[in-house]
Amino acid sequence: MQKFTYCVPTEIIFGKDTERECGKMVKRHGGKKVLIVYGGGSVRHSGLLERVEHSLEEEGISYVECGGVTPNPRLSFAEMGVKKGIEEGVDFILAVGGGSTIDAAKAIAHGTANPGVSLWDIWTKKESLTKTLKVGAVLTISAAGSETSDSAVLTNEATGKKLGLGTELNRPVFAIMNPELTYTLPKYQIGCGIADIMMHTLERYFIPDQKNRMTDEIAEGLLRTVIDSGRMAMKRSDDYDAMSELMWCGSLSHNNLTGLGREKDFSVHKLGHALSARFDCAHGATLASVWGAWAWYVWERDIARFAHYAKQVWGIERDEISAAKEGIERTIAYFEEIGMPTSISGLGIGVLEDETLKELALDATMNDTVRLSLIRPLSAEDVLEIFRKANY
Amino acid sequence: MQKFTYCVPTEIIFGKDTERECGKMVKRHGGKKVLIVYGGGSVRHSGLLERVEHSLEEEGISYVECGGVTPNPRLSFAEMGVKKGIEEGVDFILAVGGGSTIDAAKAIAHGTANPGVSLWDIWTKKESLTKTLKVGAVLTISAAGSETSDSAVLTNEATGKKLGLGTELNRPVFAIMNPELTYTLPKYQIGCGIADIMMHTLERYFIPDQKNRMTDEIAEGLLRTVIDSGRMAMKRSDDYDAMSELMWCGSLSHNNLTGLGREKDFSVHKLGHALSARFDCAHGATLASVWGAWAWYVWERDIARFAHYAKQVWGIERDEISAAKEGIERTIAYFEEIGMPTSISGLGIGVLEDETLKELALDATMNDTVRLSLIRPLSAEDVLEIFRKANY
Repeated sequence: MQKFTYCVPTEIIFGKDTERECGKMVKRHGGKKVLIVYGGGSVRHSGLLERVEHSLEEEGISYVECGGVTPNPRLSFAEMGVKKGIEEGVDFILAVGGGSTIDAAKAIAHGTANPGVSLWDIWTKKESLTKTLKVGAVLTISAAGSETSDSAVLTNEATGKKLGLGTELNRPVFAIMNPELTYTLPKYQIGCGIADIMMHTLERYFIPDQKNRMTDEIAEGLLRTVIDSGRMAMKRSDDYDAMSELMWCGSLSHNNLTGLGREKDFSVHKLGHALSARFDCAHGATLASVWGAWAWYVWERDIARFAHYAKQVWGIERDEISAAKEGIERTIAYFEEIGMPTSISGLGIGVLEDETLKELALDATMNDTVRLSLIRPLSAEDVLEIFRKANY
Repeated sequence: MQKFTYCVPTEIIFGKDTERECGKMVKRHGGKKVLIVYGGGSVRHSGLLERVEHSLEEEGISYVECGGVTPNPRLSFAEMGVKKGIEEGVDFILAVGGGSTIDAAKAIAHGTANPGVSLWDIWTKKESLTKTLKVGAVLTISAAGSETSDSAVLTNEATGKKLGLGTELNRPVFAIMNPELTYTLPKYQIGCGIADIMMHTLERYFIPDQKNRMTDEIAEGLLRTVIDSGRMAMKRSDDYDAMSELMWCGSLSHNNLTGLGREKDFSVHKLGHALSARFDCAHGATLASVWGAWAWYVWERDIARFAHYAKQVWGIERDEISAAKEGIERTIAYFEEIGMPTSISGLGIGVLEDETLKELALDATMNDTVRLSLIRPLSAEDVLEIFRKANY
């Protein structure tokens, strides 16, 4: 086990009707004027926004709305939110939505707390970030884990770059998690969430140096839980138990608990980000579309690990090589089962030109300046091969 | 899954040499004058105390020592610490030791922050606790989980009562966890730690209403990890990997992660506390000594749960009744394997008089005013039967 530090200060309020505790939580954290960040109209139509606002009113907390976050949230939206936050003098940012909304809220919090500083300079670390506003989250999609994570992703639509920022200042102070709020999600979004949760765990799992028994146990248990609950959720999205497990696993999968004691590897995310920045596809779907190609490209460098995964997660007991292969096949088959694409064309963007793949490979590797994957370090050329494998 | 709230703000600094970061951590949390709480001379002889003090000096932090915590820490010791803390004007309490030391530090923090208030009144909730001093911990024993938990236990030697206090104000602000510090522990203490870690998990596991898949997965994975690592540790206490797993599991087992979404049941702890308050036995040993008798007394009320435990933790696949029984037998055999007592006489206090057992049963049930065990509610009469079963 390597050295690690770990701290998840986010207060989790989990269960039915918990959105009604929103006002109390904001008050406890000293919020007096809140910017409510949300996406499309669904939180309004469902009545959730009204319940949240009523809860704030009950505690005498004032608020302004800031709706319109899109999937793959844009820098320009965040900048608009910052402008509004500063103008209105808010002291607390409340996200009501999924990962995109929470990520946008984190960005707005950083910008609002640092007026006059370019948000993209903060995001690209040209400007160091030392303070932010407090962020709370009312979660409506089980997927990104942003509600307790130290990360956020923003897309600069001027350059087409999608970039993550990791900092302890990204941790929300509270996360309200009511699984019932996810009942009305379309199946495709539930599938994207499942793929994202699994990938947050898999990306931390396929790492050299495996002497982390408890971390492995948590990761494997989480994958088994998500796989089974995901099947139940695809049948009935109002299955409270299934939706509860997905929601809780979504948080656990991305707050670092599943990767403690070893390095972090988000190579498949880099490939997915390149795709979704350019084609604006759903994040989880992009991950599922390339994972298989990635796995087939790297697995022979750590057959034992892939075999261990196959045994622990899929119950496959065979010789190492066969088990490793079957584990990959079963994972891909599962993505298909939950309606996720397992190739690039499955994203609805057709089969891509080789020139486009080359550009995507450069995007994913920051112009071939970084190597992805610790199991088998990948240059832009390797990433291109993976994209080609997935390009059908 | 029931409603739950969960927050573990304790910052964990895990790995070799991490005690050298002590000064930086105290400074970050605003500590200027520290009361260092510790037990016997071992932390001095090992050089640990010197390293901790050097680390404080490097950051210009002053300190006073407060040594002499005993196992099953006493109210009188804590009161002495409070007196010293107030006289010296300390603003931070640093525990260097195991669970008893950390529990004593928590009590001293509460008392020092509330001068003039009786510490036992705080402990028995006659006085409400609204503020405390910050506590940090340098952990030297993997067992109690006090380094991240919201609980602490104190014994009032005047009345012979051993009582736990649960409050969010009990969470240390940081926990420094260097597994190497546990290399020199006697085998018996390592065994007591293993029993305690397992019991923190088992007490949260044998609860009615089991719809908590992820919570179960974490609990079962933790038990498997502790069982295997415990065997390795009993062979070689300088096995870094084994001691790392025990240390990390010790924290995870008692910060509530293994019990989220269901009620908590600490009935075996109540029996153990009654024994250790009266006979001053090691906490972990008292738990192991009565667990088997408890399990045989309650198991038929939830055979499916005991069978599930047997399958997941011990790999036993048989008919439900046989599996449930074998799971209990294997657990008891494991306690024996790691040198833990599995009967009252194994605690070195002989076989007890029935009158004594009756008194212990009343102690454990607060004079028959509370029922223990959710699986099968236990009155003082039931607890007496369990003590009788264990009394050989």
